[in-house]
Amino acid sequence: MEMQPGQMAYDRASTVFSPDGRLFQVEYALQAIQMGGTAVAVTYNAGIVFVAYRNLPVSSLAEAGSIEKSFAIDAGLGCVTAGLIADSRVLVEFLRLQAQRHRITFGEVAPYPLLAHALGTHLQQFTQFGGTRPFAVSLLLGGFTGSVPGLVELDPSGATIGWKAYAIGRNRRAVADFLEEKIAGDRTEEQAFKLAVQAVAEGSPTPFPAEALDAAILEPEAELRRIPVTEVAKRVQGMPFIGTPERGRSSK
Amino acid sequence: MEMQPGQMAYDRASTVFSPDGRLFQVEYALQAIQMGGTAVAVTYNAGIVFVAYRNLPVSSLAEAGSIEKSFAIDAGLGCVTAGLIADSRVLVEFLRLQAQRHRITFGEVAPYPLLAHALGTHLQQFTQFGGTRPFAVSLLLGGFTGSVPGLVELDPSGATIGWKAYAIGRNRRAVADFLEEKIAGDRTEEQAFKLAVQAVAEGSPTPFPAEALDAAILEPEAELRRIPVTEVAKRVQGMPFIGTPERGRSSK
Amino acid sequence: MEMQPGQMAYDRASTVFSPDGRLFQVEYALQAIQMGGTAVAVTYNAGIVFVAYRNLPVSSLAEAGSIEKSFAIDAGLGCVTAGLIADSRVLVEFLRLQAQRHRITFGEVAPYPLLAHALGTHLQQFTQFGGTRPFAVSLLLGGFTGSVPGLVELDPSGATIGWKAYAIGRNRRAVADFLEEKIAGDRTEEQAFKLAVQAVAEGSPTPFPAEALDAAILEPEAELRRIPVTEVAKRVQGMPFIGTPERGRSSK
Amino acid sequence: MEMQPGQMAYDRASTVFSPDGRLFQVEYALQAIQMGGTAVAVTYNAGIVFVAYRNLPVSSLAEAGSIEKSFAIDAGLGCVTAGLIADSRVLVEFLRLQAQRHRITFGEVAPYPLLAHALGTHLQQFTQFGGTRPFAVSLLLGGFTGSVPGLVELDPSGATIGWKAYAIGRNRRAVADFLEEKIAGDRTEEQAFKLAVQAVAEGSPTPFPAEALDAAILEPEAELRRIPVTEVAKRVQGMPFIGTPERGRSSK
Amino acid sequence: MEMQPGQMAYDRASTVFSPDGRLFQVEYALQAIQMGGTAVAVTYNAGIVFVAYRNLPVSSLAEAGSIEKSFAIDAGLGCVTAGLIADSRVLVEFLRLQAQRHRITFGEVAPYPLLAHALGTHLQQFTQFGGTRPFAVSLLLGGFTGSVPGLVELDPSGATIGWKAYAIGRNRRAVADFLEEKIAGDRTEEQAFKLAVQAVAEGSPTPFPAEALDAAILEPEAELRRIPVTEVAKRVQGMPFIGTPERGRSSK
Amino acid sequence: MEMQPGQMAYDRASTVFSPDGRLFQVEYALQAIQMGGTAVAVTYNAGIVFVAYRNLPVSSLAEAGSIEKSFAIDAGLGCVTAGLIADSRVLVEFLRLQAQRHRITFGEVAPYPLLAHALGTHLQQFTQFGGTRPFAVSLLLGGFTGSVPGLVELDPSGATIGWKAYAIGRNRRAVADFLEEKIAGDRTEEQAFKLAVQAVAEGSPTPFPAEALDAAILEPEAELRRIPVTEVAKRVQGMPFIGTPERGRSSK
Amino acid sequence: MEMQPGQMAYDRASTVFSPDGRLFQVEYALQAIQMGGTAVAVTYNAGIVFVAYRNLPVSSLAEAGSIEKSFAIDAGLGCVTAGLIADSRVLVEFLRLQAQRHRITFGEVAPYPLLAHALGTHLQQFTQFGGTRPFAVSLLLGGFTGSVPGLVELDPSGATIGWKAYAIGRNRRAVADFLEEKIAGDRTEEQAFKLAVQAVAEGSPTPFPAEALDAAILEPEAELRRIPVTEVAKRVQGMPFIGTPERGRSSK
Repeated sequence: MEMQPGQMAYDRASTVFSPDGRLFQVEYALQAIQMGGTAVAVTYNAGIVFVAYRNLPVSSLAEAGSIEKSFAIDAGLGCVTAGLIADSRVLVEFLRLQAQRHRITFGEVAPYPLLAHALGTHLQQFTQFGGTRPFAVSLLLGGFTGSVPGLVELDPSGATIGWKAYAIGRNRRAVADFLEEKIAGDRTEEQAFKLAVQAVAEGSPTPFPAEALDAAILEPEAELRRIPVTEVAKRVQGMPFIGTPERGRSSK
Repeated sequence: MEMQPGQMAYDRASTVFSPDGRLFQVEYALQAIQMGGTAVAVTYNAGIVFVAYRNLPVSSLAEAGSIEKSFAIDAGLGCVTAGLIADSRVLVEFLRLQAQRHRITFGEVAPYPLLAHALGTHLQQFTQFGGTRPFAVSLLLGGFTGSVPGLVELDPSGATIGWKAYAIGRNRRAVADFLEEKIAGDRTEEQAFKLAVQAVAEGSPTPFPAEALDAAILEPEAELRRIPVTEVAKRVQGMPFIGTPERGRSSK
Repeated sequence: MEMQPGQMAYDRASTVFSPDGRLFQVEYALQAIQMGGTAVAVTYNAGIVFVAYRNLPVSSLAEAGSIEKSFAIDAGLGCVTAGLIADSRVLVEFLRLQAQRHRITFGEVAPYPLLAHALGTHLQQFTQFGGTRPFAVSLLLGGFTGSVPGLVELDPSGATIGWKAYAIGRNRRAVADFLEEKIAGDRTEEQAFKLAVQAVAEGSPTPFPAEALDAAILEPEAELRRIPVTEVAKRVQGMPFIGTPERGRSSK
Repeated sequence: MEMQPGQMAYDRASTVFSPDGRLFQVEYALQAIQMGGTAVAVTYNAGIVFVAYRNLPVSSLAEAGSIEKSFAIDAGLGCVTAGLIADSRVLVEFLRLQAQRHRITFGEVAPYPLLAHALGTHLQQFTQFGGTRPFAVSLLLGGFTGSVPGLVELDPSGATIGWKAYAIGRNRRAVADFLEEKIAGDRTEEQAFKLAVQAVAEGSPTPFPAEALDAAILEPEAELRRIPVTEVAKRVQGMPFIGTPERGRSSK
Repeated sequence: MEMQPGQMAYDRASTVFSPDGRLFQVEYALQAIQMGGTAVAVTYNAGIVFVAYRNLPVSSLAEAGSIEKSFAIDAGLGCVTAGLIADSRVLVEFLRLQAQRHRITFGEVAPYPLLAHALGTHLQQFTQFGGTRPFAVSLLLGGFTGSVPGLVELDPSGATIGWKAYAIGRNRRAVADFLEEKIAGDRTEEQAFKLAVQAVAEGSPTPFPAEALDAAILEPEAELRRIPVTEVAKRVQGMPFIGTPERGRSSK
Repeated sequence: MEMQPGQMAYDRASTVFSPDGRLFQVEYALQAIQMGGTAVAVTYNAGIVFVAYRNLPVSSLAEAGSIEKSFAIDAGLGCVTAGLIADSRVLVEFLRLQAQRHRITFGEVAPYPLLAHALGTHLQQFTQFGGTRPFAVSLLLGGFTGSVPGLVELDPSGATIGWKAYAIGRNRRAVADFLEEKIAGDRTEEQAFKLAVQAVAEGSPTPFPAEALDAAILEPEAELRRIPVTEVAKRVQGMPFIGTPERGRSSK
Repeated sequence: MEMQPGQMAYDRASTVFSPDGRLFQVEYALQAIQMGGTAVAVTYNAGIVFVAYRNLPVSSLAEAGSIEKSFAIDAGLGCVTAGLIADSRVLVEFLRLQAQRHRITFGEVAPYPLLAHALGTHLQQFTQFGGTRPFAVSLLLGGFTGSVPGLVELDPSGATIGWKAYAIGRNRRAVADFLEEKIAGDRTEEQAFKLAVQAVAEGSPTPFPAEALDAAILEPEAELRRIPVTEVAKRVQGMPFIGTPERGRSSK
């Protein structure tokens, strides 16, 4: 991150603009997200694939399943996150609560753009009011309009952008470029899965084992299906970047 | 932005005047707005045209439609914004809520100057009370008195000014000068649209594709009509500034 | 504004006296008011004339009527303001609400000195309690005791002084001196209007067009009557200072 | 005001003692009071005379009567103030409210020492709790025990002292010394008035016109009677210090 | 007061310990108390004598009786204070309210040690919670257990100690030593009074007139009896330290 | 802990990110936990063994049983903690309360992953809101899904990770490596206990007596059983690291 | 106290960890406790002896009985404190209130470990939330489980440790070592008393009179019995350290 002396005076609080109109605490939160693993979502003809690299403690003692990056929100609603684990949990709980409220009030699953706007407004509050910090989380929220899959990206500023496929977390720009380059016309679930895994690998500096991948499938009117580690392993078998990673637990 | 050493002591909070009576945080918010794309509104004989440059992620993956710059408020009420995306959303929600309250209380669409004053007062609070920052949004609110279209500009200070046509966001002074120079007598919708697009182009340093334009039409008693991208493309075909923009995602 | 090094330590908050007993934030708010246009009020035998220079965006696109400097409060009650536009709006809303409360409670128009004291007390709170800043507004409130017109000046400190005629905003001291020198015995509406316009011109460094003048007449038991721009233009025709102003939008 | 380097560290808040046990913000408030005009109260056999110098804007445009320094509180209760105009108004409103509460609760005019203690406790709060500043007002509250007149002085610390005659505001020590030297045995109203006027003159560096004097008489069971300017002029005719003052508006 | 450079960093708030465990703001409050006059309380066989030096404005204009240092709390309950006048008033009001509450709840006069503990706890709060300062008051509370008189000393820390006779305010250590040296076996009221007056004189650097003494007697089941100035004058006649004091008003 | 000059500016509050996206106060809380004794939890075929080193005051006067590191939460629910004793108590009370609420609402023991998420969210709040500090506690929460034992680790950030066996507190990385190296296939209670004790010893720089070990067993549907000191002593008899520790009381 | 430059930046608030995980304000509170007198509690076969050195004002005027260091909480519940007098009073009131609540709710005397945990949690709050400081008190709470006496030590961090005998306040480590060395098997009340007195003497740099000792006995189901000064004097007669202390009043 390029640093200038004058900057130091304006970067202590979410409630202070720098002379050139920047909110440094929001930018620093994005920096925190960059330190975590890459997460990717790719839509396909009938659904959405979420794949995330979980910075697995390199230990046979760990329960890989306990480090979740993708989350079910409601039927046909799910998301994948990058950033601080505990901040992510708080936002997922926010989404689930909003979704339940909508369901109870209107008797239907909440439209995902509506949920995204509600979450964006929640995130914005933490960039305008004092005594707190922005959430260090980026999130790809997926859902369906009828049977058409869609994705909304949310970042600490509360901004929302729609995507067909996108990446958050470590090296997200390079991974997004990779996605754009490789994506083509319509995709089957299998093609989308492969693309997503390759994209995540693009964001990773070293090989990693299959268990490092948290993968899930979202289809209309069904709950997010997390792909079991064994199935993931079978699917990624033979991919060049699957191997033994560096030792460490950097993302937590 | 011209910077002086003495200034640094007074620019950390909305609640502090500098010795020459300036509120620096309000000025810095205006600076943030300058970093976003230009947005233009032009009234014509029967309505208002809104055209805004959306700093589109240069990616075939993005859903251009998800980056909205113009918003429907109520029948015959709409606006276009420049500045932080999430701040804009909060203000648009404020306007919609106020409009619904008015409708429920008085059984009529809220007069747009009334809405503008309510929003101006809301914005002012964020320049006088501590623990927060001003909104980094400028906004052109359009509506009708009878069938006569009108525009009110709002900025982070909460000030309001009426216009026949005006620009906010990047290079707004140069764009406003362009508008004043080119505008003439009455206008048809088509003339207003063309003028607005040219004005937005005036604010942009490089050519851009048609999808970068968020365009909408507001007519009395009707909801804001967003012009589909394909229609925009057809309308702007052959304009000299339509082309391939620089790569990047600067406005978000 | 004369500046001393020692001063810097005491001028950050309304709640801190300097060693010589000054409240610098209140003085800085007065400085902000000085940056806006001059506003003048002159009583005459049967009413009060308000004339204010509005720092008009020099653009044919602007709706001059949208930049108001004089405001109706209730029947026979009105005011003219100088300072931040949005701060002024908040205070005018305060006055209107107080006036309606009085009318509902006592079945009569509120006496203007009572309204002035209520506003003065409101302004004072912003000079004594933390987490906020003083209002950057001076205001001349006009009303009648029976049929005798009267004016009260209010400034950011909350102090109130009564006048027969007075000026606020840019160069107010020079303009007030001019008023005192030129005023004589009783005045007709026409004489008062002329005097007020000349006084405003005295406060302006350059010529200006007739539309730059916001003029209004207050008479007993009637609502403030804003003089239409065309009428103002006719009345000021031939006055030496009416001309083309410098380009710019300094007061906003 | 004598200033020491070490002092600067302790004088920013009412809630901080300096190492030698001083509350600098209270002392600075006293300094603010010194900048205003002198105010004097003198008891006599049947009542109390209040005379205050009002820093009149030297202008025929001003309504002298609008600058009040002495205030009626209730029957046989009144006061004269020195210091910030708006702070004084707030305290006078406090006294009037307390007096009405006492009257409603106990069916009698509030004893003036009781009112003084209530106001003193109110003033004290502003010297002990943060987020605010002390009131920059000194006040001489007058009332009667039976038919015996009495005065209580209140200052920003909330301390109360009883006096037969005393001075507050500019040069109060010199004026108090003058009062003590000149006062003698019992006084008639006329003698008290003359003494009070002479004392105020003692506090003024230059001659001043009769209208600069705000004079009032308090007698038992009657409301404070403000002496009309014409009567004051007649009474002070020929006194050596009555003349033309320097130009300026220093006390506001 | 001995001052060290390192100290400056820890002495701004009641809520911060210095590295050696001191609360500087409490110590500075004690320093403020040292600037006021000495106050002494001496028990005798049937009651308690309170004598305090009041820093009388040296002026025939002052009502000596208005500067009270000893206060009645309830039947057989009284106190004498040293420190800021307005802070003392607040604490005396606290004691009176507590005493009335006890009387109403239990149908008896509050035991003085209970009152002392309640006040001590109140004082402690101001040394532990932010946004405020300690009270700058020391206080000797007197009362009876049956017919046995007792005294409790309270200081800004909220600590309580019982005494047979003690001194607070200016030079309290020297005066306490004097008391200990001179006190002997049982005392009559007259002996106690003389001792108390001599002790107060011990704390005063110059002679003073009889009116400078605020003296009162507390006996069981009776309200505190303030000794009239004339009686005090008669009782102290001929004592060597009674004379003309230096001019000034240092304690206020 | 590696320290850099630039870091000092960002490490004073939980609500401030450093430019590289770190929350220093959370990292410092982890540092506090490192100063305490090591705690280990190991699952086995039918339950969980908790063993913690308690920094016993080396004194025959101390009640070893009073220094608890493992705590019963509900039937089949327990935990072991490392870090500040008082912070741990607060979190254990939080868990017990949550468990009781679940039991009352749903008529069953709370699933341990649910409890872990609730505690994680609680911990997260203390890393995002001002005026407080993170908890200086790491915690291994154990429970059962049916009869399968599981562990969740919680740290000051509120992150949660699942483990088969893990270590917190002093030298946790080295101890975890030891666990991973030594653990093998299924374990009996005895094997798990031995492994846990050896792991704790791995974290200790010196020999220690058997009483320094706080050991407990958690089995399904039963309350956590603390192993009496005598039983511990018998079980660890002959282990090489059991001996006389250094004198001191470092962990408190 | 060893002091380092870097430390100064982290020791102003309870809510800030230093880089090595220390809470300096808690450590400084312990330092404040070290400045007071030593307090000792020793269990014996049938009860607990509390002995504390009270920093008696060396004056025959003081009521020694008013300086209490040991306090009755409920039947069979008592404590001895070291540290700030007023802080101790607040905590003792907390314990008494908790004990009464337990008695009213459960119809039994509160178990002392329960009370200790409640107080520990209360103390912890003051180390985690801003705007306050930790309590500068250590406390030994005594009670019984059946007829077995027990002691819990509490310090400003809120940590709790159980003891058979222990010391708090001045030189507590040396005194605790003395206790451990001298204590042996079972003790009678007389042996416990003698040991406690000797331990307190161990903590005192100079001889002291018998009245300087505050001594009390706690037995099951009975209220704490304070041993009268005369009885203490008789019991300690002839002990070598009983004598005339230095003059001063250091602990208050």
